[in-house]
Amino acid sequence: MSRYLDLADTLGSRIEQGLYEAGSRLPSVRALSTEHGVSLTTVQQAYRWLEMSGLAQARPRSGWYVPTARPAPGLPSMGKPNLRPIDVSDWGQVQDLLDLEREGKTIQLGRGMPDVESPSLRPLQAALARESRHAGIASLHYNDMQGVPALREQLSRLAVDAGYRAAPDALIVTTGCQEALSCAVRALCAPGDIVAVASPSYHGMMQILKEAGVQAFEIPSDPVRGISLEALELALERWPVKAIQVIPNASNPLGYTMPEHRRLGLIRLAQRFDVPIIEDDIYGDLVYGWPRPHALKALDEDGRVLLCSSFSKTLAPGLRVGWIAPGRYFDKVLRMKYTSSGPTAPLPQIAVAEFLRKGHYPAHLRRMRRQYQRQRDVMTDWVQRHFPAGTRISHPQGGFTLWIELPESFDTHALDPMLRENGIVIAHGNIFSAAGKYRNCMRLSHASVFTPRTEWAVRRIGEAIGEMLRTHH
Amino acid sequence: MSRYLDLADTLGSRIEQGLYEAGSRLPSVRALSTEHGVSLTTVQQAYRWLEMSGLAQARPRSGWYVPTARPAPGLPSMGKPNLRPIDVSDWGQVQDLLDLEREGKTIQLGRGMPDVESPSLRPLQAALARESRHAGIASLHYNDMQGVPALREQLSRLAVDAGYRAAPDALIVTTGCQEALSCAVRALCAPGDIVAVASPSYHGMMQILKEAGVQAFEIPSDPVRGISLEALELALERWPVKAIQVIPNASNPLGYTMPEHRRLGLIRLAQRFDVPIIEDDIYGDLVYGWPRPHALKALDEDGRVLLCSSFSKTLAPGLRVGWIAPGRYFDKVLRMKYTSSGPTAPLPQIAVAEFLRKGHYPAHLRRMRRQYQRQRDVMTDWVQRHFPAGTRISHPQGGFTLWIELPESFDTHALDPMLRENGIVIAHGNIFSAAGKYRNCMRLSHASVFTPRTEWAVRRIGEAIGEMLRTHH
Repeated sequence: MSRYLDLADTLGSRIEQGLYEAGSRLPSVRALSTEHGVSLTTVQQAYRWLEMSGLAQARPRSGWYVPTARPAPGLPSMGKPNLRPIDVSDWGQVQDLLDLEREGKTIQLGRGMPDVESPSLRPLQAALARESRHAGIASLHYNDMQGVPALREQLSRLAVDAGYRAAPDALIVTTGCQEALSCAVRALCAPGDIVAVASPSYHGMMQILKEAGVQAFEIPSDPVRGISLEALELALERWPVKAIQVIPNASNPLGYTMPEHRRLGLIRLAQRFDVPIIEDDIYGDLVYGWPRPHALKALDEDGRVLLCSSFSKTLAPGLRVGWIAPGRYFDKVLRMKYTSSGPTAPLPQIAVAEFLRKGHYPAHLRRMRRQYQRQRDVMTDWVQRHFPAGTRISHPQGGFTLWIELPESFDTHALDPMLRENGIVIAHGNIFSAAGKYRNCMRLSHASVFTPRTEWAVRRIGEAIGEMLRTHH
Repeated sequence: MSRYLDLADTLGSRIEQGLYEAGSRLPSVRALSTEHGVSLTTVQQAYRWLEMSGLAQARPRSGWYVPTARPAPGLPSMGKPNLRPIDVSDWGQVQDLLDLEREGKTIQLGRGMPDVESPSLRPLQAALARESRHAGIASLHYNDMQGVPALREQLSRLAVDAGYRAAPDALIVTTGCQEALSCAVRALCAPGDIVAVASPSYHGMMQILKEAGVQAFEIPSDPVRGISLEALELALERWPVKAIQVIPNASNPLGYTMPEHRRLGLIRLAQRFDVPIIEDDIYGDLVYGWPRPHALKALDEDGRVLLCSSFSKTLAPGLRVGWIAPGRYFDKVLRMKYTSSGPTAPLPQIAVAEFLRKGHYPAHLRRMRRQYQRQRDVMTDWVQRHFPAGTRISHPQGGFTLWIELPESFDTHALDPMLRENGIVIAHGNIFSAAGKYRNCMRLSHASVFTPRTEWAVRRIGEAIGEMLRTHH
């Protein structure tokens, strides 16, 4: 590690531990230079790094200060209920988001991609390298259609932390959470069927429904309490809903973690109408609070919850290691898995199992949760500062994306020429809705360690919105 | 390499090059021991290895001989045409086959699994190990939904050998051939649609059709010329067939490679009825003759052939690296790929690209083709020797599976208790048919290097069949 990062680490820990009060002045550059025997430039670099991390604030001609809390911005509003299920549209824009990803030179605030450059992932890389040497031949064989047993063993332990029980034999490893969700939907639904989804919701899920010919019944969601049970109940009463799809923990894109009594209400509704629930728990381990909240599946009494997850957000998406705990739908889901892509590649499974077995996972999660939470605060601050007054911002309880709501008349696609020109990628709100709602919203990722370019991009977006609003009103 | 393998390699090459005539006596153990300065035991081990490879034959109290050709057995008969499309059945038995795979202590003659212990795969393992160290971070990122560009570059070159043109941008990397086939079917068909399939055909394809709610119209196939164009034409005339599915090269399970004029006839039929063709070319590079036959796609004039393939048979199934050249259906297939499992894991793709780029692939293929062809002959010989007279055997032109047909009244499932007891796994004929036909057939794999246990297993099966036939007639 370079010197300034060493120093930033030391200072950062002191600030986090509350050794300096909020708003108070931090040691001067000169004093730190003497204390730690490093150059003035090194201290300045360390402070700039702390600023990016939200742990220090520069005041011109005065020095560095511990940031003070700002008044919290308004939360996004809850969407209006739909009257009926609808076909999913808008593949084109999802594809655009994926295409832009490729180019590499962009400032990527659009994809829900974790920071894979964290040093706490090094043991995973080492495991991958070691296993591709040693387990070589084994890893080239097909494997168990359910997944490598050593990994399922570990997944069964993680299930305990998430409050549910699943023996290794009750779990199926999938090629990412996407395959888990896709197998769940296809196991439960035929074309023309209806799935009730919390709205806004993960765009990949919208596309799964579309390709399965399934209609989405979008249920409005509160930015703090999650899916509206009242609207859901109405939908279940009037329509032959085949499944309910929710993300109860650090929901994507709103970031809420459903309160316990709402979860119980959700389970009771599902039982009353005898409908299965597809739970996406992919952000569950990234909820900032410790211990992590239980999965909805913890309340499942009769195997009706199909829990889908993966290591794509907690470790790295390129591993393509996900899993599903399909409850009473095990057989059907296993068949779907077999016809979808056969068994999942064994090598990354073996490496992840090793990483978990050796106990590297909790430390890695601690680090990432801290980083994501800190950067949530920094990015919230940037948006408050640079976006027009009245901008509403979600207050995520985990994960690494912010949901931003602009005045109802604003269309974020009006930003497209500016974004293209500046090489900035955001996720437009409308891809999180089957009906293309939320055109006045956007999702910004705060996963990767911030650089000055990150703040520049957020400011640039905010200013462009301000100009457009002024021009049109 | 151990001494006896060195010696076996030297002797084997001499035999293959025709230095000794068929039926002639090979040098004595003593003479070889003196000539090569190795022990008598080493020479005996080498000879036993050559025997397993079908290059030498022991005659009691006389020594070792070059095997003579036997009269070829009768070929399997062509199935009877179906009158209508049907729903696919029999998932249970496919699952049994997959479950048995797990146990490891079995003699596995059932799965279509290549020999992954070949030394010619070592550069691939080295590439995997190297890339997981170096490309570490890159390989943990999501990647291009279409697949790693360096791999698609190489796939585009392989396409040239297979006689068709596909720019890297016209290819989509998939998680094995299974995902390629599954995406093709779902891109072309809705539930209730009909697909015409050459019969018997790959059981995984049958299950894909089943899970997609698609009906299979089984078209009888000649064990030498492939799918009956006459029966296919009838089906196309009378039914709204949405796609034709064929394996023109080293077809699984019959092993035929369709003659050129039949291919042309097939393409003309597809054009006349305006139906797309799903071509499974997974065994194309394992056709014994050199150069490899063209893919059917080489004759495609208007992008109606969706070529599906993978490295699961040529390199190793555990890589889970396949691809599809979807012609004019590109957009739809890419969407299916996205919703099916997201992008394919980058690490194995990078390693395979490296293996190909460095030119290891042709040498590996040469070696595997030799091994599989040699073992085809040996296993054919065993079946002729140990199975009841009148047993019909396919004469595969590539790949590593034999199709064996017994008298029509015989049900191979009658062997199940004996197979279980002896830990032998075979693939029952009926899983290769949507309708559960071919109960009097079985498929035996001859991929892995034979051991005395392999011959023992084949003999044991043959004897059991003989006993049963005698008891019942």
